[in-house]
Amino acid sequence: MSAPPYLLIEAAFGRPTERRPIWLMRQAGRYLKEYREVRAKTTFLGLCKTPDLATIVTLQPVDLIGVDAAIIFSDILIPLEAMGLHVEFTESGPVLSNAVRSRSDVDRLIVPTAEEKTPFVMQIIRQVRKELERRVPTIGFSGAPFTLLSYAVDGGNASELKKTKPFLMSDSQTAHVLLQKIADTVVDYANAQIRAGAQAFQLFDTWAGMLSEHDYLEFAWRWMLYVMERIERRGVPLIVFVKGGSPFLYRIRELGADVVSVDWTMDIARAKDLLGPSVAIQGNLDPHVLYAPPGVIEERAGDILDKMRPHDGFIFNLGHGIMPDIPVEHV
Amino acid sequence: MSAPPYLLIEAAFGRPTERRPIWLMRQAGRYLKEYREVRAKTTFLGLCKTPDLATIVTLQPVDLIGVDAAIIFSDILIPLEAMGLHVEFTESGPVLSNAVRSRSDVDRLIVPTAEEKTPFVMQIIRQVRKELERRVPTIGFSGAPFTLLSYAVDGGNASELKKTKPFLMSDSQTAHVLLQKIADTVVDYANAQIRAGAQAFQLFDTWAGMLSEHDYLEFAWRWMLYVMERIERRGVPLIVFVKGGSPFLYRIRELGADVVSVDWTMDIARAKDLLGPSVAIQGNLDPHVLYAPPGVIEERAGDILDKMRPHDGFIFNLGHGIMPDIPVEHV
Repeated sequence: MSAPPYLLIEAAFGRPTERRPIWLMRQAGRYLKEYREVRAKTTFLGLCKTPDLATIVTLQPVDLIGVDAAIIFSDILIPLEAMGLHVEFTESGPVLSNAVRSRSDVDRLIVPTAEEKTPFVMQIIRQVRKELERRVPTIGFSGAPFTLLSYAVDGGNASELKKTKPFLMSDSQTAHVLLQKIADTVVDYANAQIRAGAQAFQLFDTWAGMLSEHDYLEFAWRWMLYVMERIERRGVPLIVFVKGGSPFLYRIRELGADVVSVDWTMDIARAKDLLGPSVAIQGNLDPHVLYAPPGVIEERAGDILDKMRPHDGFIFNLGHGIMPDIPVEHV
Repeated sequence: MSAPPYLLIEAAFGRPTERRPIWLMRQAGRYLKEYREVRAKTTFLGLCKTPDLATIVTLQPVDLIGVDAAIIFSDILIPLEAMGLHVEFTESGPVLSNAVRSRSDVDRLIVPTAEEKTPFVMQIIRQVRKELERRVPTIGFSGAPFTLLSYAVDGGNASELKKTKPFLMSDSQTAHVLLQKIADTVVDYANAQIRAGAQAFQLFDTWAGMLSEHDYLEFAWRWMLYVMERIERRGVPLIVFVKGGSPFLYRIRELGADVVSVDWTMDIARAKDLLGPSVAIQGNLDPHVLYAPPGVIEERAGDILDKMRPHDGFIFNLGHGIMPDIPVEHV
């Protein structure tokens, strides 16, 4: 007797599902008191690097909320640390003390082997899969090359690309040397996760939406494509998320992803129109709606479900990560 | 003998111009050493409220850079101060010490008469117009209702709407009471500027692009429309700028603006397609391009000009305000 197919995988490949699969970006997080209890035992980075604990928090939203996928507990900056950057997590966000500003800074970075430098990530995937016993699939992930560059150059909170944009503009050649190293790192990191058992894989391009289309194509899209073409898929659907990417959706469509995850700004029916029938869509409730009374949350989520009713290939999600102070009963 | 028509006004109404008019958001600013010299004499708010000094800095980019319009030196938070909020400008941005969080906070705010509470703004317009002697037109401006609400509620830097979104979601009724007061304030403020001689008027909705389309329509678009319908235009073109507004351009098109100013993220040819022939377009060079070597700046600006060549009704601008550390020779 074969196990029933996973809802998330079916939807990712555009096949009809009996109901819409749902998971939430940053679903393993501070809004869960059970997460906070585990997190209290160590640092954020310590949690990322301790497979037994990371496995526990990865599974919490599956057991407590009933989501249709487990996304491994980790951070998008893990590959940068493996490349040789010093990453610290403070109350106000990540701080990279040896940010990259020059060609010699870039030359000092290595292209790590994921199995060697970040074995804990693959260990988490193996443990999560074992614990899940085919209940729901396990999602692996990585930051996309441009977003990793933006952290490496801005040295922390990259939301305004304050140092990244002058760097791109004044020395695009060095930027591409850095992007090449990061992209090769991400390819190996993704392939190692898939080999370890990740059943879907998402690339997060968190800050690429701050670029003009010209720069998006040159510094983000092109390197995302490079990665997409080199991931050994082995039947694993690839999901791309470009926050603020609605001006470029017609380009994102061409990346060869199975699923495009869209943020909350664009109406999902319009996003679907732009993406066309051959790619599945994931999204896009504004996570801030979860601050609203339950009736409003139901109405807004219902609105998205109604708009997607005519289409197969839909995964319900938030348009961005869930906030720490969201009431858990609203989730 | 009648004076030649203003390039900017002609383009704003979609008429052909011999060359493309240009001005730059935040063109009177710290990147100019002449500005810094005047600014050193007083506080930022003092500069806004001293017509003789504000007039000097308003005219500087016309004389020094040769832009095709003077936009009065002021700040989008001036109307909020007039409503009864305490506004301070610190090194890290504006701080509103009595931010609005409840219905009673909203009830305490007044709907001021612009001539009475902010006469200095109209005085600046009159002085600037006198000094300009018809060289270039004078642009007045205001924050749009939603953006002013976001500062009032977040109490300062509203870029993430951290307090605004929970407020909208948990108490939309009070939000609309506040928006009504702000919108009435903005209408009077705009009309007073136009009566004083503003020859074009721009509404800045800086943070509305952080909303979902649903919330954009409910909390931003609807109140922008309210203002647009009540401004007594007297032949003055209205410009609307919604930063991050590309997912809603097809809605922004319906606001009745003469000109839609677009940020740098969307390719300008695509934005023009979405806006259609009946509205002029302003934009959209990424201000960060001004960090690049002059050759790159020329190439990127040339690219925008090339794309707009088939269209009348184009005003060259940046996709957002110019940064303080931009080399003036790049401008």
